[in-house]
Amino acid sequence: MPTHWYNIAGEYPELYLPPIDPRTGDPLSSKDMLHLFPEILALQDVNTHDVEIKIPVDILEKYITWRPTPLIRAKNLEQSLGTKCKIFYKYEGVSPIGSHKVNTAIAQAFYCKKAGYKELVTETGAGQVGSAFSMASAFYDLICHVFMVKTSYESKPGRRILMQTFGSNVYSSPSNITEYGRSVLENNPDFTGSLGTAIAEAIEYATNNPNAAYVMGSAFNFVCLHNTIIGNELKQQLKNCDIVPDYIISCIGGGSGFAGISFPFLREKLENKKEINFIAVESNAAPKVSQGIFEYDYGDSAKFTPLIKMYTLGHTYVPKAMHAGGLRYHGLSPLVSNFIQKGYASIRAYEQLETFQAGQLFAKLEGYLPAPESCHSIKAAIDVALEHRNEEKNIVFCLTGHGFFDLAGYESFNQGTMSSSAFGEDGIKESLENLNNHLVNLNLKK
Amino acid sequence: MPTHWYNIAGEYPELYLPPIDPRTGDPLSSKDMLHLFPEILALQDVNTHDVEIKIPVDILEKYITWRPTPLIRAKNLEQSLGTKCKIFYKYEGVSPIGSHKVNTAIAQAFYCKKAGYKELVTETGAGQVGSAFSMASAFYDLICHVFMVKTSYESKPGRRILMQTFGSNVYSSPSNITEYGRSVLENNPDFTGSLGTAIAEAIEYATNNPNAAYVMGSAFNFVCLHNTIIGNELKQQLKNCDIVPDYIISCIGGGSGFAGISFPFLREKLENKKEINFIAVESNAAPKVSQGIFEYDYGDSAKFTPLIKMYTLGHTYVPKAMHAGGLRYHGLSPLVSNFIQKGYASIRAYEQLETFQAGQLFAKLEGYLPAPESCHSIKAAIDVALEHRNEEKNIVFCLTGHGFFDLAGYESFNQGTMSSSAFGEDGIKESLENLNNHLVNLNLKK
Repeated sequence: MPTHWYNIAGEYPELYLPPIDPRTGDPLSSKDMLHLFPEILALQDVNTHDVEIKIPVDILEKYITWRPTPLIRAKNLEQSLGTKCKIFYKYEGVSPIGSHKVNTAIAQAFYCKKAGYKELVTETGAGQVGSAFSMASAFYDLICHVFMVKTSYESKPGRRILMQTFGSNVYSSPSNITEYGRSVLENNPDFTGSLGTAIAEAIEYATNNPNAAYVMGSAFNFVCLHNTIIGNELKQQLKNCDIVPDYIISCIGGGSGFAGISFPFLREKLENKKEINFIAVESNAAPKVSQGIFEYDYGDSAKFTPLIKMYTLGHTYVPKAMHAGGLRYHGLSPLVSNFIQKGYASIRAYEQLETFQAGQLFAKLEGYLPAPESCHSIKAAIDVALEHRNEEKNIVFCLTGHGFFDLAGYESFNQGTMSSSAFGEDGIKESLENLNNHLVNLNLKK
Repeated sequence: MPTHWYNIAGEYPELYLPPIDPRTGDPLSSKDMLHLFPEILALQDVNTHDVEIKIPVDILEKYITWRPTPLIRAKNLEQSLGTKCKIFYKYEGVSPIGSHKVNTAIAQAFYCKKAGYKELVTETGAGQVGSAFSMASAFYDLICHVFMVKTSYESKPGRRILMQTFGSNVYSSPSNITEYGRSVLENNPDFTGSLGTAIAEAIEYATNNPNAAYVMGSAFNFVCLHNTIIGNELKQQLKNCDIVPDYIISCIGGGSGFAGISFPFLREKLENKKEINFIAVESNAAPKVSQGIFEYDYGDSAKFTPLIKMYTLGHTYVPKAMHAGGLRYHGLSPLVSNFIQKGYASIRAYEQLETFQAGQLFAKLEGYLPAPESCHSIKAAIDVALEHRNEEKNIVFCLTGHGFFDLAGYESFNQGTMSSSAFGEDGIKESLENLNNHLVNLNLKK
């Protein structure tokens, strides 16, 4: 098992762009994050000099329960497609909570514990991130608070119960725990919640409670860093089998899963002149790369974060309801955005129906029921394998998690009642205009 | 990975007792099973001469996707208990459907396909067995029919959707697909179903459709055989780590999970004089060993099966509703029954509340949320580790599956509303008297 994370900004500092203060337009440093989380995480976030970062032994001892995760060849899928390509998947669903989110949750919990925090606080949509931090908090005897979007809290009890079983306090957001939550409820008692509101509540809680650290599941540079354990393992596994990857595919929500499997291979692409094609796969519900712009924007809809240079659809963009909740994010990790913007990765965007078709085919042939987010990567892998039907390409994709908590999506797929996830171009145009006007108002754009 | 299954009746033929025909009292042979399933399975069921049975390459190629399953040391649990014992668990939950049930489902589907069957038919309670056969049917391009107990069909949609996603036909039982189902519905339109009814419907379907094989998830000798891949792997894994097990623990419903992990170690216990203590763990909802009798009885409540010598509470015994559905069986695999009756294994019975307490503790410390059935094994492992707190014993238990489909149980545990699973002694007495009277009427007892 690898003993280090790979810090892409350490090797390629040009990929790092500091966030800026919206009030001044000045770059922010690690010090500006210290009111929310421990110094070591803040330092990891801005680190542009260390290529390898040693994983603390205590974290390795936790990882080892399910890591290295298996690299599996999808032979039945290959045969069914009639392709000469070999298809492999790195299966992160073997983790106790069923996805890659624990890679960073354990690391963040460890560092927070070490820094003396007693509580962790985070937000969650469908519950993937909340489950990961609930487990990690239980491991490190921390009190975990999860603000869960009300509509998910009520309609998807599974992950709520899982979090509570780990001992977490799960609040339906908007809640009456925070001032922001109370103000939202006062204005609109029937509001069903949003990730933006949940983020705002979590940040308020952490800001007002010095014992509590705010922790997050994606997008931040250190979250990408912690997930490079995936790609570092994959490198070793491919080497053991003497396989050189031609394609590395992963879906993008906040971007940490894609970063995790891809970043460790950039050097091979750039220096060894190997033809590695990275493909980032997004949902047409939130097509930030294919239809968004590369611009400074907020990470959340409530404008609590600094301004981050990234692919974005604008912070006022509200994606249609769809089953791959993890891909319903308006923005994208700045490192991943830069990686794509520099031409290292190409992009594909899919409609949810075609991704579920791919997911069902995969389940029937390989057994694993994929999470709706992972179905996007499967669809892309299938398309590549068909496009290169007569070539012996090696295609690797990240199966980021299982779909046992997403059966409502499969139910609507099975019954033929799945609605389109596509967002109209007009809505995107409006949201991008909002962003532009906001930046002009801040004197950050003309 | 092991290439053979271990056939305990081949090495210790005295453990095998043939089923008998209730009409004549005569022993049955493999020929009497041929109307239900392929000859090779019938022959495996009565095989008392081959100790090792080669696993067909095609089955090994399916197994290899997730096998060998990991053997994991529960270090955090050990520390929390303050015991000198080492606790290990063999984790079967990494399989695509999340439990050990696929070990036999894939084998049965393979043999049925080879024998020319086009369809598989089975019954399922909460859906564990049905999911396993749904996946296996998809692998071998067989049509799968699952009769699912109505109350589970309606209240537990998760596994139904999973089965349907694999392409299975899932019927709420009693159904109008079979004559038996229709007769039940006519007499009692509001009947919420039972495993006995579902079995009867599945057997009727297979009997009337020559293209359809009846397949089953536990109890039968060949089901135990197929699960010995667990114990064979464990042997190798323990050897690799130079560990000699002092305790091997698994829960018993039909008994195939216990058989799978335990049988391959019997020779070491008997011949090498190693002190291996096998512990079978049952629920006090169906305490067939601790409160039942070792007697001939039917495998199902509808009396469709032959008479089988086993530990039983009587075929009219109806356990209380509880969350470990897989342990709610009145009988026990005849091989496992004989294994226990000869004194090779001891028995423990637990109340569901204490098993959920053990399961939650395990989840908090080790991350994996255990299935309610597996919680029984965890409780026993914890008790043994505490009883031998100051001895360096090696305790191994089988974590047969994850609990992601059992969150309703954890919800009632978290909320403190879990009811007792204990069955009153009077009810057991009545059911055993019924059995006795029935055997007397058949002239099989005086």
